[in-house]
Amino acid sequence: MSLIVQKFGGSSVANAERLYNAASRVIETYRQGNSVVVVVSAQGDTTDELIEKAREINPNPSKREMDMLLSTGEQISIALLAMAIEKEGYPVISLTGYQAGITSDSNYGNAKIKNIDTERVFRELDRKNIVVVAGFQAWNKFEDITTLGRGGSDTTAVALAAALKADLCEIYTDVDGVYTADPRIVKNASKLPDISYDEMLELASLGAIVLHNRSVEMAKKYNVNLVVRSSFTRDPGTIVKEVGSVEKMLVRGVTRDSNIARVAVIGLEDKPGVAFKLFSLLAKENINVDLIIQSIGRDDTKDISFTIAKSNLDKTLEILNKNLDFVGAKEVKYSDKYSKVSVVGAGIMNNAGVAAKMFEALYEVGINIHMITTSEIKISVLVDIQDAEMAVNAVHEKFKLDQVRG
Amino acid sequence: MSLIVQKFGGSSVANAERLYNAASRVIETYRQGNSVVVVVSAQGDTTDELIEKAREINPNPSKREMDMLLSTGEQISIALLAMAIEKEGYPVISLTGYQAGITSDSNYGNAKIKNIDTERVFRELDRKNIVVVAGFQAWNKFEDITTLGRGGSDTTAVALAAALKADLCEIYTDVDGVYTADPRIVKNASKLPDISYDEMLELASLGAIVLHNRSVEMAKKYNVNLVVRSSFTRDPGTIVKEVGSVEKMLVRGVTRDSNIARVAVIGLEDKPGVAFKLFSLLAKENINVDLIIQSIGRDDTKDISFTIAKSNLDKTLEILNKNLDFVGAKEVKYSDKYSKVSVVGAGIMNNAGVAAKMFEALYEVGINIHMITTSEIKISVLVDIQDAEMAVNAVHEKFKLDQVRG
Repeated sequence: MSLIVQKFGGSSVANAERLYNAASRVIETYRQGNSVVVVVSAQGDTTDELIEKAREINPNPSKREMDMLLSTGEQISIALLAMAIEKEGYPVISLTGYQAGITSDSNYGNAKIKNIDTERVFRELDRKNIVVVAGFQAWNKFEDITTLGRGGSDTTAVALAAALKADLCEIYTDVDGVYTADPRIVKNASKLPDISYDEMLELASLGAIVLHNRSVEMAKKYNVNLVVRSSFTRDPGTIVKEVGSVEKMLVRGVTRDSNIARVAVIGLEDKPGVAFKLFSLLAKENINVDLIIQSIGRDDTKDISFTIAKSNLDKTLEILNKNLDFVGAKEVKYSDKYSKVSVVGAGIMNNAGVAAKMFEALYEVGINIHMITTSEIKISVLVDIQDAEMAVNAVHEKFKLDQVRG
Repeated sequence: MSLIVQKFGGSSVANAERLYNAASRVIETYRQGNSVVVVVSAQGDTTDELIEKAREINPNPSKREMDMLLSTGEQISIALLAMAIEKEGYPVISLTGYQAGITSDSNYGNAKIKNIDTERVFRELDRKNIVVVAGFQAWNKFEDITTLGRGGSDTTAVALAAALKADLCEIYTDVDGVYTADPRIVKNASKLPDISYDEMLELASLGAIVLHNRSVEMAKKYNVNLVVRSSFTRDPGTIVKEVGSVEKMLVRGVTRDSNIARVAVIGLEDKPGVAFKLFSLLAKENINVDLIIQSIGRDDTKDISFTIAKSNLDKTLEILNKNLDFVGAKEVKYSDKYSKVSVVGAGIMNNAGVAAKMFEALYEVGINIHMITTSEIKISVLVDIQDAEMAVNAVHEKFKLDQVRG
């Protein structure tokens, strides 16, 4: 008899049929004698519809009122899933984030969970209830509703699993696990049987949208047993766990991210503090910078290039052009015609051959590399956007990732 | 400087345009230097849509989960109205029933407010916030969400006005006050400038749907200054107040209610306890009985006739036919082809002429009366359903109700 947290995303509860399907998964686990806590997201496009409703009224509403509005999406889902479970005759109770004891800081729209008071959830489990908890939402010290931002329901599930000391946290989604590459791009991509927390983090940050980073970070921190699986198939999914226990395999996956822009700040003075000035300007505006490369310019100056999310390009250019003198730069160049292609795998950098092999794969298909960066467990290159799919396929094939047994 | 509670019904917040309109009413009151608490219902058909969503999943969901679901409708409204007010640059905060300190009993779907802890609302008013509160919803001792049943938002508004000791409670709706008869039936119906709580209660129970009885009862109990007015016109509306202060006028209004069925239980034994047995059977199933008439039958038996809501007819017949022996009756007859036409006015029954005048009006247009009942402030008759409109018009004219000055 175990305590299992199951999380169903928006597509897994989008309509009556899918709610029944989710309910049957929950009931099956419950009937096996387990205590079951279910976390659900808002149905399908509900959140987008609510955002649209708000925009119609006020293009710039306060974040507090947005959270008041958006949290209704998950509240609708928990009630409907509870009703679907009731219909099959099983004892169930739905709980809002507040009722489930989930408190957060007051960063409306992107709040961080601070604490979970498990008293109510345990009380309901003791009564043999299946407990359905609203994902994505919490409660702050002002007794106001907050939401947890993107991937918030995953975070709720993992945080609950950690607080309840659950034996397992199952993330049900519309894909059946974590793949060596996006199956829409690479036809023979393989499903990974397991992956380490760190690898999952890199994959997520590089464009694989299966699990949100915050939830993986939390799972790593509290050592939560995590499984990503499909709510529509019986596939065992992909287990996310400690690196030591993961199957030895150098490269775990190839990703691409085309939602990026490259900005180059040219002709910076070669003296201390330049990078600090530059990036603190962007940080102040909450613009996250990804790859950073600094190179020596021709005339005792240096250039700094970096990538940002495409949506931040206009703002970044505005800030930099306004502060050219302050930063001490000659000019700013940019392009949004690049994609970032990455390979991820624990220990990649301890194996000199991996980088060379990746570059070889790109060379063989004639793809030019514009930037390179590496970390302990990933290698990323910037290529022309129209080359990205070919690049992913070439690298995937080079590392024989189609031969992984899922 | 006054404290004013304003309530906007579902049609008054149904879309962006109407939300702006409601917001401008609120802001106007706030700019006059008043503290303003706003209570809102769910937008337009939201509640019906949520009920439909539930039915699709489970035709017989638990009432607790229905309340979890339905309460989202008002939560959406408060957030959107707050955003509309924010857009105009005024300080505002939305509060759920729980945040507004509204606690109720645990009769899910039809809960009664038990207490209002006004601390949070007063704190927000002290900060000069316009406070937007979700109607229809409360919180019980189990820390669960309840809803207050039909007319619940009116009840929230009046209860808040009472608890906050507000100077005025304005109910904004899609009609501009209380009329001497339904303007859709009687062309020259007049708007009443004022009406007593008791008269309003009778009118409401007789089919005038302007204000729900529970809210009027509460207004009477706590002596809340109540005004019913339109959110779409500048009309001053109808004031609901203590009987002593109401303009002297014998008959205040004429109503009809066609949503009724008459049931006759024939051949009951003429001994004590028969009526008790009969009506306790119905009470157990929550079937409300309206007019009751007992008459002597032909052969030492008696007949009891009563009216019920049409929607309860099938269930009532099932119960009675199953219990004919227990009740000691010969047979049950019924018809749903009647309407109830009533005149309402404080002191009607102390004026013998009123009843006679009503019957005269019906006689003059050749309408047959099937049942009559009277109370301190109303006279009701049962007529054929197809005669009801003519009956209302005839009575309205007889009492010269078109000459009331609104």
